[in-house]
Amino acid sequence: MISIEDRVRFVETDLMGVVHHANYLRWFEMGRIAYLRAAGIDLNDLMAAGIMFPIVAVECQYKNSAKFDDEYLICTTLSEFNRAKLVFSYKVLRKKDNLLLAEGTSRNVFTNLQGRITRLNNEYYQKIDALYRQETKEKKEC
Amino acid sequence: MISIEDRVRFVETDLMGVVHHANYLRWFEMGRIAYLRAAGIDLNDLMAAGIMFPIVAVECQYKNSAKFDDEYLICTTLSEFNRAKLVFSYKVLRKKDNLLLAEGTSRNVFTNLQGRITRLNNEYYQKIDALYRQETKEKKEC
Amino acid sequence: MISIEDRVRFVETDLMGVVHHANYLRWFEMGRIAYLRAAGIDLNDLMAAGIMFPIVAVECQYKNSAKFDDEYLICTTLSEFNRAKLVFSYKVLRKKDNLLLAEGTSRNVFTNLQGRITRLNNEYYQKIDALYRQETKEKKEC
Amino acid sequence: MISIEDRVRFVETDLMGVVHHANYLRWFEMGRIAYLRAAGIDLNDLMAAGIMFPIVAVECQYKNSAKFDDEYLICTTLSEFNRAKLVFSYKVLRKKDNLLLAEGTSRNVFTNLQGRITRLNNEYYQKIDALYRQETKEKKEC
Repeated sequence: MISIEDRVRFVETDLMGVVHHANYLRWFEMGRIAYLRAAGIDLNDLMAAGIMFPIVAVECQYKNSAKFDDEYLICTTLSEFNRAKLVFSYKVLRKKDNLLLAEGTSRNVFTNLQGRITRLNNEYYQKIDALYRQETKEKKEC
Repeated sequence: MISIEDRVRFVETDLMGVVHHANYLRWFEMGRIAYLRAAGIDLNDLMAAGIMFPIVAVECQYKNSAKFDDEYLICTTLSEFNRAKLVFSYKVLRKKDNLLLAEGTSRNVFTNLQGRITRLNNEYYQKIDALYRQETKEKKEC
Repeated sequence: MISIEDRVRFVETDLMGVVHHANYLRWFEMGRIAYLRAAGIDLNDLMAAGIMFPIVAVECQYKNSAKFDDEYLICTTLSEFNRAKLVFSYKVLRKKDNLLLAEGTSRNVFTNLQGRITRLNNEYYQKIDALYRQETKEKKEC
Repeated sequence: MISIEDRVRFVETDLMGVVHHANYLRWFEMGRIAYLRAAGIDLNDLMAAGIMFPIVAVECQYKNSAKFDDEYLICTTLSEFNRAKLVFSYKVLRKKDNLLLAEGTSRNVFTNLQGRITRLNNEYYQKIDALYRQETKEKKEC
């Protein structure tokens, strides 16, 4: 489990006075990128190597509203993976009291620049695998 | 089924050269609002009456990439509803060839201004019910 | 003057209950793209030809608040141009009463894919010039 | 001068491969909020006291492109203020080499909940004044 922190931006709220629900997909993305960074994978390098990582499915359950200026945690776990896809699970928690704001998952594949499905080479795969094994052993909870 | 059209904005793309996946939740929202408008419900009125409509769950499957300047259709169906919640289904199609770009669902409840679950009154409920019955009879496909 | 219409999206509001000010830059962009489209220039073609059009300056004055579901007009004029840059002026008006919501300008240059300043070739330049002359003659006001 | 740090989000890029220009207004907002926080002003309190702070003008000059995953600094200075308005100046710098990415200003007024211009009371005014004096004395440069 890789955790990052941030703070709700004013622009992320809507006229119901809380964070607009579409922003959680952006926060999941930040969590996913932080996970890959922790595994030693820089997405700029991946793209420079001609590998794209389009999202093919996402779902989110909203539990409690986040408000402007709330500090929150994004906890990201890799729940399933192989050379062709990654499935991440996310929990977003309000920092001051660990209140669960939302949870969800995303599934992405890998493609080449022409959009055809491709498979991760050993170098990238082993980085992900190594972090996954370490995470599984540590069983850190969010 | 209520259908609206729009065109991909430049700002909706990301550095992979296609529409960023989080935008589809914004498009679903536009479809949902158009559906309610077709039923005679103005969300500004609903909010002025103290009724909020937070999203509690959303999911989306991405089938094909939308590109900058593509014209697209958002087709919205009410799949399930009662006085306490609405479940909408969405399909987003590229206009020129009806290519399916994404499909998904959202579930929302109704709450008062304090965030407590509330139920739609007869006036609003019957408007939704009337459009739902008409839609079901017509069986329009997207 | 090229005019397009749209409607305020829910996601474009913020917790002050009105459209967040950063969205006007997105609306200006929609106006600018519509202007170029009217001149016969498709930005996808321009980019495919290796020409980028980064914004180098923008300013906006906010006059009245736009609210959720308001219909608005974006009126775009080309105020200054040569082969190396375009300066556009924008007015955003509420449709129902022509209330001025905001006005502003943007300045963009043209660059190659490496980010070096470049100049428009004759084909593109003449398209812009033709629309500019026609606009100047017609003196349409927003 | 109050400085905060952040990292470019994937969603903030566009198909030209760099940060979309409208995001800088969101970053300016983060800088402005950080400045007010440093002065001891919490915008949630201000709004709870019935004081809104709409932006009436903004301008931005773009100097260099920010890229995905770049770390950046937002340096915010209060350039002009009285009980009725605040003018902030911003510089956004790439963290690794202090390259200037963009600079600009914003002007906001204060209004009541009905949108009428109002003036800050002593409590809030003195907080801003105290930070302004301290900043002026220290003359920190970004």
